[in-house]
Amino acid sequence: MKALPRRRFIRQTLSAALAAPFISTVVTRALAQAAEKKIGFALCGLGSLSTHQIAPALQHTKNCRLTGIITGTPAKAEKWKAQYNIPGRNIYSYETMAKMADNPDIDAVYVVTPNALHAEHTILAAKAGKHVLCEKPMEASSEKCQEMIDVCKAANRLLAIGYRCRFEPHNLECMRLAREKVFGDLRIIQACFDIHLDLPSGAWRFNKALSGGGALMDVGIYALQATRFITGEEPIAVSGMETKTDPVKFKEVDETVVWQAKFPSGVIADCSTSYNSSLVGGYRAVADKGWFQLDPGFYYDGNRGRRSDGEEIRYPEVDSLGEFYQFAAEMDDFAQCILGVKATRVPGEEGLRDLKILTAIYKSIRTGETVKLG
Amino acid sequence: MKALPRRRFIRQTLSAALAAPFISTVVTRALAQAAEKKIGFALCGLGSLSTHQIAPALQHTKNCRLTGIITGTPAKAEKWKAQYNIPGRNIYSYETMAKMADNPDIDAVYVVTPNALHAEHTILAAKAGKHVLCEKPMEASSEKCQEMIDVCKAANRLLAIGYRCRFEPHNLECMRLAREKVFGDLRIIQACFDIHLDLPSGAWRFNKALSGGGALMDVGIYALQATRFITGEEPIAVSGMETKTDPVKFKEVDETVVWQAKFPSGVIADCSTSYNSSLVGGYRAVADKGWFQLDPGFYYDGNRGRRSDGEEIRYPEVDSLGEFYQFAAEMDDFAQCILGVKATRVPGEEGLRDLKILTAIYKSIRTGETVKLG
Repeated sequence: MKALPRRRFIRQTLSAALAAPFISTVVTRALAQAAEKKIGFALCGLGSLSTHQIAPALQHTKNCRLTGIITGTPAKAEKWKAQYNIPGRNIYSYETMAKMADNPDIDAVYVVTPNALHAEHTILAAKAGKHVLCEKPMEASSEKCQEMIDVCKAANRLLAIGYRCRFEPHNLECMRLAREKVFGDLRIIQACFDIHLDLPSGAWRFNKALSGGGALMDVGIYALQATRFITGEEPIAVSGMETKTDPVKFKEVDETVVWQAKFPSGVIADCSTSYNSSLVGGYRAVADKGWFQLDPGFYYDGNRGRRSDGEEIRYPEVDSLGEFYQFAAEMDDFAQCILGVKATRVPGEEGLRDLKILTAIYKSIRTGETVKLG
Repeated sequence: MKALPRRRFIRQTLSAALAAPFISTVVTRALAQAAEKKIGFALCGLGSLSTHQIAPALQHTKNCRLTGIITGTPAKAEKWKAQYNIPGRNIYSYETMAKMADNPDIDAVYVVTPNALHAEHTILAAKAGKHVLCEKPMEASSEKCQEMIDVCKAANRLLAIGYRCRFEPHNLECMRLAREKVFGDLRIIQACFDIHLDLPSGAWRFNKALSGGGALMDVGIYALQATRFITGEEPIAVSGMETKTDPVKFKEVDETVVWQAKFPSGVIADCSTSYNSSLVGGYRAVADKGWFQLDPGFYYDGNRGRRSDGEEIRYPEVDSLGEFYQFAAEMDDFAQCILGVKATRVPGEEGLRDLKILTAIYKSIRTGETVKLG
């Protein structure tokens, strides 16, 4: 009784179309076609995330293959060409990526460049006829996010944002516990994602022009997402506070931020994030009759949780694929969206919503006032 | 190596005077005298807390004995008289308690009446020459707290506030971890105390005139205390948000509140409290090089914690006395303060500080603005 609904929910969520029996034949056929077809991905931006997570995860996908790269560093191009057997014709720079338009090997571009370059590269890719999966945060401003949505729509290309937790079974199980009110109505969500950003001072994450912001934009966004996907609601008011314990290192971007948010049903959230602390990331949802939590809940690997009734929330089958599970699931989902099997649960509009809320939290930090959202 | 400093810290904290070797002879003599002498306590207010926690805990103290009661309910007086063998001359009502002045059986009064009556009863007791231990929150306003401090000082009587966690070894161990910077500098404290207030609608806790406030005053104060005793600092700014999911039951007092606070060293806190959720109470302190947490940390019984290095924070010897441990430790400490062995770590000024901060959080909830504290 306990295991079945959980599995069913996750299967439904992972492949939303399966939930509608009347189109099951169509879907079965589409899935069969999908199984045969692999979407060619070009990675745009070959930094740490592409190198250590996304490219290795691509090797574990069912419907994707790494067919191209876009990089500003010729030495990286040579290395990736050899390592992943990428034909020379599929290697582009940011200046030449518009020429992908006539390259049938590349169906989709995964934009993994610095935040404030996402719009530029997304628009170039969409105008070249490619679908776009873009890393979070979507961009450095709501205006840029809107432009990305508009251009992709005009080009009739799919746009999705890389919210990997939305494909992660521990998080999906928490969404189920919330939606099915297993512990009654939600009251409070406490969420946090704190890391120690050990990067050289020249890294783009410290540069506001390239990042758009610091800890809040980069890792706080996971806690923000959790408050939204657990409640299934949009915040109506937010307020925040900031502190800097290392104002030299974090001269341009936020280091440590707390914020609180109020949701229409009465749920309320208190959250925190840092670039200058030890690693902690997850959330606890406190409801009328009990609680559930993931601790950790936002890691690449090793997420696990507990419930107030003593049950564990754990998926060893996810752990077996380790840090590559979430990125592989996210990319396969996007591939299946392109193949017409289903709609994405992480469209550009989802990234835009977060940017509007993040912008409101920054505004509250500046003004010392609660900011209403509506 | 690990066990020794911990034990030593707790012994020092439990009996601060022992930390100063040059007065050890004096202290040893005072302690020996203290061991012989028992302070006579009168309980003022025989509600649930007195009945189920404080009176039973008194039976486990070393330096206290229950010698009197003050109650407005004659039936309760009869019951307690029989149960605890209290002489008729030591039984008072709120109207007659001034007459305690000529009763040598009673050295101290433990005020356990509704919050907004604490000043009245504290002042009556102090003017009758009795030392006062008063439950938290100290009163319903800062002004009343100040009045209590002033009257006790003028009467040359001790005044302490019943912050039981300040005598609880799991919490003391967390204070040690913070003070000794075992995990480096603190960055963020996430604290919460959420309960389900299952009381009849006529209970004084729902009545603002008697309680002064709801969840924030009653249980949120534990989370507030934790942010203060872990940092060892006073907040310089706070902001809060409130929500009511049951506006009928919680017509007069706050039901669910989140707040955030900023401390001078740069530590920042995000906290939550509720009267209408499942039971959760504790905190996590995230520092530069690791973290430690109590979950739960504010319960009468069963508190325990973890550290980022995998070590558990647990005191089975505390669990063995169960729910009576903290109250017994708190009362013995107060008795030893009266006997001159040491100074209290929870003076009236400590209760006043919390009231000022709680008042600032309520103000922020009303105005939607961050409130500075100075």
